[in-house]
This record gives sequence, structure tokens and C-alpha cells, in this order.
Amino acid sequence: MAIGEYVKSADWKSEKHVPVIEIPDSVKPGEAFNVQITVGKEISHPNTIEHHIKWFDLYVMYDDGQFLIHLGHIEFTPVNTQPTAVFNVKLEKSGSLIATSYCNIHGLWESSKRVEF
Amino acid sequence: MAIGEYVKSADWKSEKHVPVIEIPDSVKPGEAFNVQITVGKEISHPNTIEHHIKWFDLYVMYDDGQFLIHLGHIEFTPVNTQPTAVFNVKLEKSGSLIATSYCNIHGLWESSKRVEF
Amino acid sequence: MAIGEYVKSADWKSEKHVPVIEIPDSVKPGEAFNVQITVGKEISHPNTIEHHIKWFDLYVMYDDGQFLIHLGHIEFTPVNTQPTAVFNVKLEKSGSLIATSYCNIHGLWESSKRVEF
Amino acid sequence: MAIGEYVKSADWKSEKHVPVIEIPDSVKPGEAFNVQITVGKEISHPNTIEHHIKWFDLYVMYDDGQFLIHLGHIEFTPVNTQPTAVFNVKLEKSGSLIATSYCNIHGLWESSKRVEF
Ligand SMILES: [Fe+3]
Ligand SMILES: [Fe+3]
Ligand SMILES: [Fe+3]
Ligand SMILES: [Fe+3]
Repeated sequence: MAIGEYVKSADWKSEKHVPVIEIPDSVKPGEAFNVQITVGKEISHPNTIEHHIKWFDLYVMYDDGQFLIHLGHIEFTPVNTQPTAVFNVKLEKSGSLIATSYCNIHGLWESSKRVEF
Repeated sequence: MAIGEYVKSADWKSEKHVPVIEIPDSVKPGEAFNVQITVGKEISHPNTIEHHIKWFDLYVMYDDGQFLIHLGHIEFTPVNTQPTAVFNVKLEKSGSLIATSYCNIHGLWESSKRVEF
Repeated sequence: MAIGEYVKSADWKSEKHVPVIEIPDSVKPGEAFNVQITVGKEISHPNTIEHHIKWFDLYVMYDDGQFLIHLGHIEFTPVNTQPTAVFNVKLEKSGSLIATSYCNIHGLWESSKRVEF
Repeated sequence: MAIGEYVKSADWKSEKHVPVIEIPDSVKPGEAFNVQITVGKEISHPNTIEHHIKWFDLYVMYDDGQFLIHLGHIEFTPVNTQPTAVFNVKLEKSGSLIATSYCNIHGLWESSKRVEF
């Protein structure tokens, strides 16, 4: 049994669980830029104690890399904290950002975003 | 022995470990706003595998509250991820935000910021 | 406003929020030993989605140290995961372990435990 | 690009990154039991500031479930804290535990363990 079989992805315009990754139009190797991650970009997700987005992880996989690099982890608090976050990251090479988000009822979701230098 | 004896605070303009909390000029009860937390606002902190800021916690203490409310937690990755983050929070009442930051060499630091409605 | 003013402590035999720290009778410098942390040792704490212990942090303050050293952080899931955990740690010098626990309703609690070599 | 493509698994007896999951021989639905997770069970993994296991996640997938349930997350501190942990969990139905472990150099690893009632 492998976790990859259970991490869901979908078009975020039709699915409220997908973590949408936004970066500036122009980014440079070795220069820090903001990565905004948001669940419920188009269709908002509930944020109650019974049903909420609990956390995000952010990774990068360099095009010539062998291993995922974990860039950060954020834990939210239901009701008071919304499922969106900004990380400020510095990459050396082109690759793909991967974000995962966890809903306490609907499990693990992911999306990815190219970063090209 | 109480943790409060060891959580340091200082003027962030002269100390690179203090988590600086920034919020918009105008915030409303029950409406989400961004809380930016940054270590090294004026004097930058090293970000190497040997010496870095590892995480932040964000809390609120309402003026009429009895207990701290934890709003979120963020973990950074040295070198690639800078010690700054944005949380998006919704408060019901006036109170004080408290942020803590942890340096793997210099321990636990804090600062607070009033939110008045 | 300082976080230390709001971290509660009490006799764990009469209070269900205090993180009780247990270590072996005999520990040696530089040799790993188990640190068990438990909330609700004598009086159990609720573990429901509405009211639960969300996380622990574990620190050490060496007797001759200037700064807290963070040893680990654990996040629980209400209902399925009980508020108890074992960390396996290696200390170089005598000092005090400090654990904090967070209840989503009753805030932040702490206790400490001497480690003497 | 999907995270599942990059989460590695292997025989833990020949690979030092795989999180080994251990549970008691006899477990019952609705009764809490210990889940020990260890990286480096047979071949130990380095634990230095330059190269270490940073965290574990623990999930369960019930046999009749649609979504992963996250049971907990633990963050270690290099040098002082060893990559092993005990979670105390309560499951309702048969399923598979899945643990992931993250090495700051060698990325994300996983293993799973059946829980049958
Ligand atoms: Fe959901
Ligand atoms: Fe420092
Ligand atoms: Fe409580
Ligand atoms: Fe490794």
C-alpha cells in the first residue's frame, strides 16, 4: 500500500480541496520569492471545528534531482485561521513545486507548479 | 522551572531574533486579515544548515480571555526557506497577537502586537 | 505582553492538562533514553473534535545553558490519537526537560523534570 | 507531477530510511494501542545537523475508507533526538497504517502495516 495511491488531485476550479500554488511571473535562481498556497481559491472550503483544512506541506523536485526537498509545513487552527499561507523560498534550479493539503474529512490533496529559470 | 523565564524579547531593531508582527492598519472583527511574521526585519539572521530559524508559533490572547488561543505553526527548511510567513486570521474581539520564533542556536524569542477593534 | 504569563502549570494529580514527563531512573550523558509525555495521567482529558489536546513541545534547558533547546514537536489528531508520546533523546549535561501541551479550549500548559547525571 | 512518484519504499532490512511500524500482536477496535515508528531499525541512519531524519507522518486507510486519515506528525531535532516515536492510537476498523519519514538529504520514504480486527 503506497500513499501515492490516495493523494487526490483535480482541477482546482471545480474542486475545493486542491492547494493552488501561486508564484510571481518572474523568478530568479538564488533569489527568494513568495509562494502563496490557497485551498478553496474558486470554491471555498468549510472552516469549522468539524470540517476544515488542517495543514499544508510544500516540496520542490528539481528537474535533475533524485529526491524531494521539503520546503516547509504549516498547521492551521479551525475557525480562526484560513487555509492560505505564504512561504518565502529560494531555489537554485528549475523544477516543480508540489503542495499537499489535508482536510480532516476528505484526506490528502496535491497540486504542482513549474518554476522555470 | 517555567518556560516563560527563557523566552527572550527585545527591540527588534537591534536584535535579529525577534519575530516582527505586521498587520493591516484597519482590521475588523470577524473579517480575515493577513498577519505577516518576519525574523530579521532590520538585521538579517543567518539561514544555514548550522544556524537558522526553525519555526514560528502564532497565538492570540483576547483582552477578556482566560486562555491563549493558538492560531498556527510553521516549520521552515534552512537555506531554501526564509524565516517569514503570512497567516490569514479572523478574530472576534480585541486582544494581543503573540508570535514566538525558534533559532536552533539562540533559542526561543517572542513579540506581541495589539489588535484593536 | 509575554507568553510566559499565560502558560499554566499545576499539580498534575489534580489537573488534567499538565503534561507529565517520565524518564528512566538511570540515564547517562550521551546515551539515548525515552521521554514519555502524557496529558491526563491521573484525570483523563476529553478527546473529541470539540475539545482535545492538539500538540506537545519538548525542550531542555541545560544547567549551564543560556538558551532553550527544542527537542521535538508532536501533533495529535482528535478522537483517534491519544495525548501521549515517546521521544528518544540524548543529552550531554544535567538540566531540566520542559514540556508544553496545548488544549484547543484551555490553552497552554507546562511542566518540567530534572535530568541529573 | 504527483508526489506519489517520489515517495520511496524498500525492504527496511537493507535500507536505512524506511520507517518501520511496530504494533502489539493483539489489538482491538476502539481500544488504544501503541504504534512505534523507527527509522534505521536494522541499519542506523546518521543523525547530524548536516544529515538527519526530520519528521514522520502517520496515517490510516481503512479497508472500506475513501480517504486517508492523518493520525499524527512528529518533528525531531538533529543530534539530540533520535528518529523513533510512539503514537497511541485507537482505530475503529481494519485497515493499513502508513508512515512517512523525511531525510533532509534523501527525501521522502514510506512503509505500511496491516491492522486486522
Ligand atoms: Fe473537506
Ligand atoms: Fe540565531
Ligand atoms: Fe481542555
Ligand atoms: Fe539520509
